[in-house]
Order: sequence, then structure tokens, then C-alpha cells
Amino acid sequence: MNEAEAFAAVRKSLKQRRFEHTERVTEEAERLAEMYGADVGKARLAAILHDYAKYRSPAEMRQTVTKAGLNRNLLYFGDEILHSFVGAYYIMEELGIEDEDILSAVRYHTTGRADMKKLEKIIFLADYIEPGRSFPGIEEVRETAKASLDEACLLSLKNTIGFLVKKKKPVYPDTFEAYNYYTMNK
Amino acid sequence: MNEAEAFAAVRKSLKQRRFEHTERVTEEAERLAEMYGADVGKARLAAILHDYAKYRSPAEMRQTVTKAGLNRNLLYFGDEILHSFVGAYYIMEELGIEDEDILSAVRYHTTGRADMKKLEKIIFLADYIEPGRSFPGIEEVRETAKASLDEACLLSLKNTIGFLVKKKKPVYPDTFEAYNYYTMNK
Repeated sequence: MNEAEAFAAVRKSLKQRRFEHTERVTEEAERLAEMYGADVGKARLAAILHDYAKYRSPAEMRQTVTKAGLNRNLLYFGDEILHSFVGAYYIMEELGIEDEDILSAVRYHTTGRADMKKLEKIIFLADYIEPGRSFPGIEEVRETAKASLDEACLLSLKNTIGFLVKKKKPVYPDTFEAYNYYTMNK
Repeated sequence: MNEAEAFAAVRKSLKQRRFEHTERVTEEAERLAEMYGADVGKARLAAILHDYAKYRSPAEMRQTVTKAGLNRNLLYFGDEILHSFVGAYYIMEELGIEDEDILSAVRYHTTGRADMKKLEKIIFLADYIEPGRSFPGIEEVRETAKASLDEACLLSLKNTIGFLVKKKKPVYPDTFEAYNYYTMNK
């Protein structure tokens, strides 16, 4: 699948606002890939597709978790994380993406996980720091991303966990494991 | 082992300040045990012994983790949590405590864990809210402990994780699992 086909696929799936976010994530991912010596083509393709499942209904995504044999734990941590894991499945099933680097970058773009591959970190961060985002602490993550992917991932994980914990929301285990990993392996 | 013997054992092990903390935890544990229909004698004994290992050297405690076959994960999350897990082992080995309710209440008094037994919650909370403690959010935990052990545990876990994450310190997995559990099972 080339970029034009990928953009066409997500243009159909996403609202305009989300499509524009996707364009910004794609540019950010390209920038990070160049900076850190990752495959720019894969980074752009993963970024274009990262929110492919964003507007599927939670009911459909929950069914897919069961049908596709994904981790059932996904059903207990809120709907926000579903689109990443189910999205990786959909882009494989519906768009024929087979590249495991792209699939795992989409799969973990919301939760992160311990010991992420370079492309996973790039999509995780690009989604977090793209210029349309605005929340407390983001400038520090943007600055840090210029110096260290791992340190920037740690900061964004710290912010995410702090945000969820303040609201007494559950935190997906991958996110906790990622946080612990990057506190110890910076 | 009766209370007098337990107090004598910890008086030898603890500095005066820590001993006075232990006395306050014991009173708090008694109050919670009465309030929530737990065994007051066990609650007091667990409270008296909860910090038994507080002043063992980290080097000795680390050796004990290995020697006693405790979870090796304990070695990677800072020394603060060691005294609970190793303490449960020491009070069994050195003081002859065999009651599993008391042992597990000491073992999890710092980290918590998912689905705690009533005595575990009581010691976890009594240690957190005893009247000598003073930090942001503690009054809310004290008030909540009058109404619900689970809700009070959730608040203290939330505060602890928030505190550690702000400092980019690793968080022991039991604590994360406890937090998630009590966000979902209040």
C-alpha cells in the first residue's frame, strides 16, 4: 500500500479534524524518523494509518477483540485504548498491511509498552507532540524529543499516568510497564 | 507471640521515632479493625510488627530476597519497599510468626496489592493515615477510611503513584495492580 492509498483509506474513515491531526502526526513522524535514523517511509505510513479505527464504534471494537483473539484485558480499561489495538488488526485485515514494524507502531501508539522498537517510539511520540496538541508539560516533551526518544517517551508516559491517576481512571498495564521500563532504562 | 513480646522485639529494632510511629499505627489499626469487624488482636500484632525490618541494611535485605527465594523483581524498585517483603520473612524466621493473615499484612503494607484481604487493607491504611503523618491529601483519606476501606485504599494508592510518577521513580507492579483493581472494584 502506498501513501496515496493509505491517505485515501483514512480520509474515508476519519472526520476532517482527525484527518488534519493525522497529517500533522505524519509530518512529525517523518521529522523524528530523519532525526533518529529510522525508515522514513514506514514512519509516514504508520502515522497515516495510526488512527484508522478511531471512529469505529466501541461495540464493534469490543467484538473484534474477542473475534480476533486479542488480549481480553483490553475490554476493561476504557474505550480510548481500543482503537490502537483493533486498528492494527483492521489495517492488516482490511488494507493488507503485513509489515510488523508498522502494525506494532499502530498497536502501541496509545498505551506504549516496555522496550519499544524505534518506530513504535516515533509514532507514540509523534501522536503526542504534533503541533496541534496543547496541554500542560507538552513543551518539555517536544524539547526532550530533540535529544532523546527514550527520555521523551518517559515524560509522556509520566504525564499520561499522572493525568489518569488524578481522575482515578484505570491505566492499561502496558503503560505502567512502559513507564517503569523507561524510568530504569533511559 | 503476645503483644508485649512483639513490642519488645520491635523496640530493639527501631529508632525511637519509628517506634512511636508503630504505636500510632497499632492504635489506628485497632480502630479500623473494630470499625470494619476484623480481628483486633491480629490487627494490633500485624501493626506492631509491620516495620520490624525498617532498619536492616539494604544490602542485607537484598541478600535475603535472593536467599529466601522472594520475587527478584523486588531488587529493581528501590529500597523503600524491601522492608515489607523481607520483614514478613524475618518475623516468620526470627519471631516465629506463622499466621498468614499477619504475614501478608506486613508483606503488602507498603505496596498494597490487588484484592487485598481485610487485614492487609487495615495495616496498609493504618500506616498511611496514623495521626503523625502529614502530607497533601491525607485528610481526604482519613475521612474516606471512615466510610470505605476500598475507597480509602484507592485514594492512598492514587496519591502514592502520583507522588512517585511526579519524581519519575519506578512503581512496584503490585501497586499498579492494586490501583487498577480498586478503580474497577470499589
